[in-house]
Amino acid sequence: MFKEILRSRGFARSGELEFTYGKIKTPAFMPVGTLASVKGLTPAQVKSTGSSIILGNAYHLHLSPGEDIVAAAGGLAEFSGWQGPTLTDSGGFQVYSLGKIRKITEDGVTFADPATGDQIFISPEISIAIQHKLGADIIMAFDDVAGLKEERHRTLEALERTHRWLVRSIDEHQRLTAQKQAASSKNQAKSRNNPTPNSQLPTPKLFGIAQGGLDKKLRIKSLEFVQSQDIDGLAIGGLAVGESRQEMHDMLEFLANKYSTDYPRYLMGVGHPVDMRFAIERGIDLFDCVLPTRNGRHGTVWLKGDKQVSIKNERFKEDFGPLDESCDCQTCTGPYTRAYLRHLIKSKESLGGTLLSIHNLRYLQRICESYQ
Amino acid sequence: MFKEILRSRGFARSGELEFTYGKIKTPAFMPVGTLASVKGLTPAQVKSTGSSIILGNAYHLHLSPGEDIVAAAGGLAEFSGWQGPTLTDSGGFQVYSLGKIRKITEDGVTFADPATGDQIFISPEISIAIQHKLGADIIMAFDDVAGLKEERHRTLEALERTHRWLVRSIDEHQRLTAQKQAASSKNQAKSRNNPTPNSQLPTPKLFGIAQGGLDKKLRIKSLEFVQSQDIDGLAIGGLAVGESRQEMHDMLEFLANKYSTDYPRYLMGVGHPVDMRFAIERGIDLFDCVLPTRNGRHGTVWLKGDKQVSIKNERFKEDFGPLDESCDCQTCTGPYTRAYLRHLIKSKESLGGTLLSIHNLRYLQRICESYQ
Repeated sequence: MFKEILRSRGFARSGELEFTYGKIKTPAFMPVGTLASVKGLTPAQVKSTGSSIILGNAYHLHLSPGEDIVAAAGGLAEFSGWQGPTLTDSGGFQVYSLGKIRKITEDGVTFADPATGDQIFISPEISIAIQHKLGADIIMAFDDVAGLKEERHRTLEALERTHRWLVRSIDEHQRLTAQKQAASSKNQAKSRNNPTPNSQLPTPKLFGIAQGGLDKKLRIKSLEFVQSQDIDGLAIGGLAVGESRQEMHDMLEFLANKYSTDYPRYLMGVGHPVDMRFAIERGIDLFDCVLPTRNGRHGTVWLKGDKQVSIKNERFKEDFGPLDESCDCQTCTGPYTRAYLRHLIKSKESLGGTLLSIHNLRYLQRICESYQ
Repeated sequence: MFKEILRSRGFARSGELEFTYGKIKTPAFMPVGTLASVKGLTPAQVKSTGSSIILGNAYHLHLSPGEDIVAAAGGLAEFSGWQGPTLTDSGGFQVYSLGKIRKITEDGVTFADPATGDQIFISPEISIAIQHKLGADIIMAFDDVAGLKEERHRTLEALERTHRWLVRSIDEHQRLTAQKQAASSKNQAKSRNNPTPNSQLPTPKLFGIAQGGLDKKLRIKSLEFVQSQDIDGLAIGGLAVGESRQEMHDMLEFLANKYSTDYPRYLMGVGHPVDMRFAIERGIDLFDCVLPTRNGRHGTVWLKGDKQVSIKNERFKEDFGPLDESCDCQTCTGPYTRAYLRHLIKSKESLGGTLLSIHNLRYLQRICESYQ
């Protein structure tokens, strides 16, 4: 699915990913639309930022509206109105975020639905089945994420379980893919004019997730294992979970010459301009992060030169210039001044979050475009 | 400012209002942008609904960001990015809504800022001065609004005070208008190339507000008084404040043949399809109401035939059709299904409120357009 087009600036590479909905260029930042909506933005507004693929979350979409409804709509791309490439996360990280209210066994994870208190069980097989129904173009293996501060034996346990769960994820993915292809041929034979909705869902590509925390030996071990499996792409998990920037960069530097060139490489949860540039120059192709949209809703933006500022600052009170003169986003080229954006955020008007999210997303896509 | 173009269907009339930013057609519904933002919608999204004039509120904008900042930005139309015709309400109704935490004297109203607890005083003169700085095209006289269930002596007191305050509002409006014109000529004489920002603010038109509750004698008295004054437009206040639909319609029917034809007529706070049609056919030209946007944020929409439904209804769970097949709004013609809109509202994703507000506003503008 990945084609490397150009290599430049160290390990940086530009490439193409091919999907049912067409090709996209990498490096690319994937805006997070946890619940099938990039918070506060229409699909057209998201597209205006230069974003070409969005991310949904299997865990959240399983709870609401449920994968069966998304499947009946024709998959995440259709359900969300995005009508373009999509990726779903497996829910492993969300389960990790639940902290002590979850119980992990070799079989899977049991936890309480935060909304209803209902006991929910997710295993690698269940996560993959959910993701097949959600019908994204890229789906993620279900992993066991260890925190940074856990004992080494827990990091090792999580790593090895992640590997065993990867094998189970791949098995289930291949089983479901074969099943779907069989059903599809059968349907085509039966009636070429009346395909069942489910047969229209894209057959997803599966990415494996390498873990290992900040331990280089474990990282190598995990990378080698994951790359030895039948995967369509490689994700780096367990970074951007609270370690220092220096620690993250050291690990990215260490891994830069150890990737197989066959796969697209996705650094999960990273979306700060400084980290993205560093990671792209160490061979990373894909990113996702809530930072640009969450920061936007809270009034924090990146301005030229990666200056991170709060629009609530008193100095913008009577600043009638555009948010960032050097930016070509709809917010910066639209009829909005810094004083107005400050007023919207301070007054808790949701338009403020929408307009600043548009800017922040465009800021990250411009970084990506400079390497394409 | 008003030109009647056509009279049809009873007292219904279509007309034109002329502003600095161009002509608009009436009847027209004015979306409410209390804090210089129609909640959750960009100016372009508001324009897409066929809306041509928006409403801000002097009371709210006085508290935040303050009229001086709006004036420095070039007035409400520029500050808000709307760049089209605007109207500001005087704050009279907001003061009324504060209920017991306000104190009304002949001079004006003292009340506590709900956010800070600070004592705030607004008089007709202060409201008009604030509105001149906000720089809308239409400003409203400051009125004393009585509730429906008050004793008749209070209704009468509020009515007579509203009339005295109208005279004071007009005096202050004329004083400020003359002052501005003098300053403007002086500035033009000084430097034709460097006008001060304030001289660029539009000189607003002043609308008087007729009150009288549900008492026909008081209504006539008020209408006659207000229409005898030097006003640019007539507003009907004190309806849509809790009376029954029948009571409101009776009053509109009663007033229909009693208006001067010179003025545009604005029925304040009305924005239900049934009431709008009834009022237009009794000679009303302008409307405003939070209903389409507030309902939208809560998941309530009007569908063909004025059916008011909640998108949260279980029956929309797997309804993959458009919200309203007969509607041409961005939501109904966009890539959004009822099932998706239901999911957004149920998940408290703000995009849901944006998309349903667009539909509801368009629903009301289509009613207006059918009379233009």
